[in-house]
Amino acid sequence: MHPSPLRIEPIAGYSPTIGRLVGMLTYARSTTLAAVEGLTLAELDHLHDAESNSIGALLAHLVAAEWSYQVLTFEERLLSPQENERWSTALKLGAEGRRSLRGYPLEHYLEELAAVRRVSLDTLAEREDGWLERTVSSAPKLNAHWVWFHVAEHEIGHRGQIRWLRARLPNAATARAR
Amino acid sequence: MHPSPLRIEPIAGYSPTIGRLVGMLTYARSTTLAAVEGLTLAELDHLHDAESNSIGALLAHLVAAEWSYQVLTFEERLLSPQENERWSTALKLGAEGRRSLRGYPLEHYLEELAAVRRVSLDTLAEREDGWLERTVSSAPKLNAHWVWFHVAEHEIGHRGQIRWLRARLPNAATARAR
Repeated sequence: MHPSPLRIEPIAGYSPTIGRLVGMLTYARSTTLAAVEGLTLAELDHLHDAESNSIGALLAHLVAAEWSYQVLTFEERLLSPQENERWSTALKLGAEGRRSLRGYPLEHYLEELAAVRRVSLDTLAEREDGWLERTVSSAPKLNAHWVWFHVAEHEIGHRGQIRWLRARLPNAATARAR
Repeated sequence: MHPSPLRIEPIAGYSPTIGRLVGMLTYARSTTLAAVEGLTLAELDHLHDAESNSIGALLAHLVAAEWSYQVLTFEERLLSPQENERWSTALKLGAEGRRSLRGYPLEHYLEELAAVRRVSLDTLAEREDGWLERTVSSAPKLNAHWVWFHVAEHEIGHRGQIRWLRARLPNAATARAR
């Protein structure tokens, strides 16, 4: 889709500034996928210490966060109480995440990441650059461009943690990533 | 300088797309500064484990990386062997970084971060948006927009690690960050 992952520029199928943003989202995602490549279920569920999130839980968190920002900017509303309830573990992580966000192979997370991203890209393709400037009606300190930059920024921060955690997995000699 | 840190939009004094990029760099930096606020010299030098970089070393790394990307895009050249030698510890981190990148208070890192950033912003202010599209002559797979997005992206990944490390400092109850 993107001609080179190491160029940020307009992309066919998107308004120009949205295309640049899609390049950033796509590059960030490529680094996340590289950081988790080949991890086993046990590695995805591994808890580094009593306060850590597993790598699998962090991937579930990325899916939930992206979905919540779709609701905020594409549907222009906050999450409903029911949605907050359903997604709160993946959004908040912590003790409940350590308890329940586990038992899934990498394919599960990759499919969920791809599915939520498909909605993001399809919807961004329908928008014009002017939409990016707009104040988010349910969160008026933000504009849509910040929110979608933040989706990448949030993912990148957790990817930094995933790399760190992966390098310290019990069998880290084979699992080591940058 | 930026009207709100939670909006990405053109900024007075910069070409429009460069202004958006500056908003991202500035937001990323604000999260780094928040992540290290109030850390003592001992906390900046603390090594979480035998393979970890200290938070201070990570800050030195951000300074060195931003400087190297200035050379790559503003001066359009690779680092000289002498520059590589002089900066290699901060650029590469690892064992030598654990040995020598220590002993500085937070103010030292904050001043270095601000100084290198000032050069980035002053130079970006002199450029037009068309410059961002250009292929980097010394690294032709990259364009300048990717490089400057990467400066933010690289900082954000390490900030994710800094937050994680800060939450696990010996006196983490008072030092805990998000």
